[in-house]
Amino acid sequence: MQLARPIRKLIESFERLPGIGPKTAQRLAFYLLHVPQEQLEEFGHNLSELKKNTVFCSLCLNVAETDPCGICIDTKRDKTVICVVESPLDVLALEKTGEYRGLYHVLHGAISPLNNIGPDEIHIRELMPRVEGGIVTEIILAMNPNMEGEATAMYVQKQLRITLAGQANSQLRITRLGMGLPTGGDLEYADENTLSKAIQGRREY
Amino acid sequence: MQLARPIRKLIESFERLPGIGPKTAQRLAFYLLHVPQEQLEEFGHNLSELKKNTVFCSLCLNVAETDPCGICIDTKRDKTVICVVESPLDVLALEKTGEYRGLYHVLHGAISPLNNIGPDEIHIRELMPRVEGGIVTEIILAMNPNMEGEATAMYVQKQLRITLAGQANSQLRITRLGMGLPTGGDLEYADENTLSKAIQGRREY
Repeated sequence: MQLARPIRKLIESFERLPGIGPKTAQRLAFYLLHVPQEQLEEFGHNLSELKKNTVFCSLCLNVAETDPCGICIDTKRDKTVICVVESPLDVLALEKTGEYRGLYHVLHGAISPLNNIGPDEIHIRELMPRVEGGIVTEIILAMNPNMEGEATAMYVQKQLRITLAGQANSQLRITRLGMGLPTGGDLEYADENTLSKAIQGRREY
Repeated sequence: MQLARPIRKLIESFERLPGIGPKTAQRLAFYLLHVPQEQLEEFGHNLSELKKNTVFCSLCLNVAETDPCGICIDTKRDKTVICVVESPLDVLALEKTGEYRGLYHVLHGAISPLNNIGPDEIHIRELMPRVEGGIVTEIILAMNPNMEGEATAMYVQKQLRITLAGQANSQLRITRLGMGLPTGGDLEYADENTLSKAIQGRREY
């Protein structure tokens, strides 16, 4: 027996999503058979409208409805600090903390030679003009604490040093997010790496 | 900061799917930002067409493109056996074995008092006319081997006995799928229930 064609087509669409295997795709497609037609239409509409009404901010490269984005034009934000992140989801996570009031720069990826992603495949180059001119006094490197993120942080730092050599704000601070034990974590279950970062990053109490 | 509206709307659509939490919904929506517009349109089209071009077979209640479905009108299938399953996915799984050549009856659920699903919420009633008339000689109860499935099997069996009391084919065989160790399984890791079912269901060798 062959599955009905409309179901097969929808399963194929779901299977193309990352982290959705054939079984999950089947389950989702059959679930949607029991959903009202209007909900299906709305879902479909949301998919086709996703990219039509979003742009990448030409300053920070974050996804937004306007260019420049709401953060870049917000006069209440601190224009002297730029936080460099790998993805728009990272911006979202940082904004949720309410702790950060500066600007962002979204790289849309991390350097990963194994996946053929070099420095030119992500938006490092666009960061350089933003630090020239002396307004920016701190760059926070907020890439993920893994191999790719560390490699990217290292590369971005090097590029910043080259760009700023002889510039007015060559005193630019370059910082990296603090590493250590996560809140709610358990010391005895922390891996060695996390624990040694916590020791290196200890602070006066 | 608020996420761009088109992204928020799509995240909401994904969140309504079973087994997709807020984080996965976010991840999927941001992934789709990097996908060509045509793929988004196709996905949306597949969603809105899903129910337009599928029907429930009026005989077996399986999802199909035609009514009656391809299995019910297939003259090569054995019309004397009906396999009762909970969902169309179960039909798919059984068809893949190539072992079964009879007909199906899809209940679209299982009795589950905890979820307010009683016998009338699933399609048990529609099975009864199918066994009257004496053509059907065996009903295979292929509900899932869990609490809900067992309760449903028990109920369907009782209803069949009532329906057939005094009928021509009151000799109808009612069977249940074999229970025991799954292929590739490991005896020492099997749970007690599975193992006792395997002992009860042992066969001549």
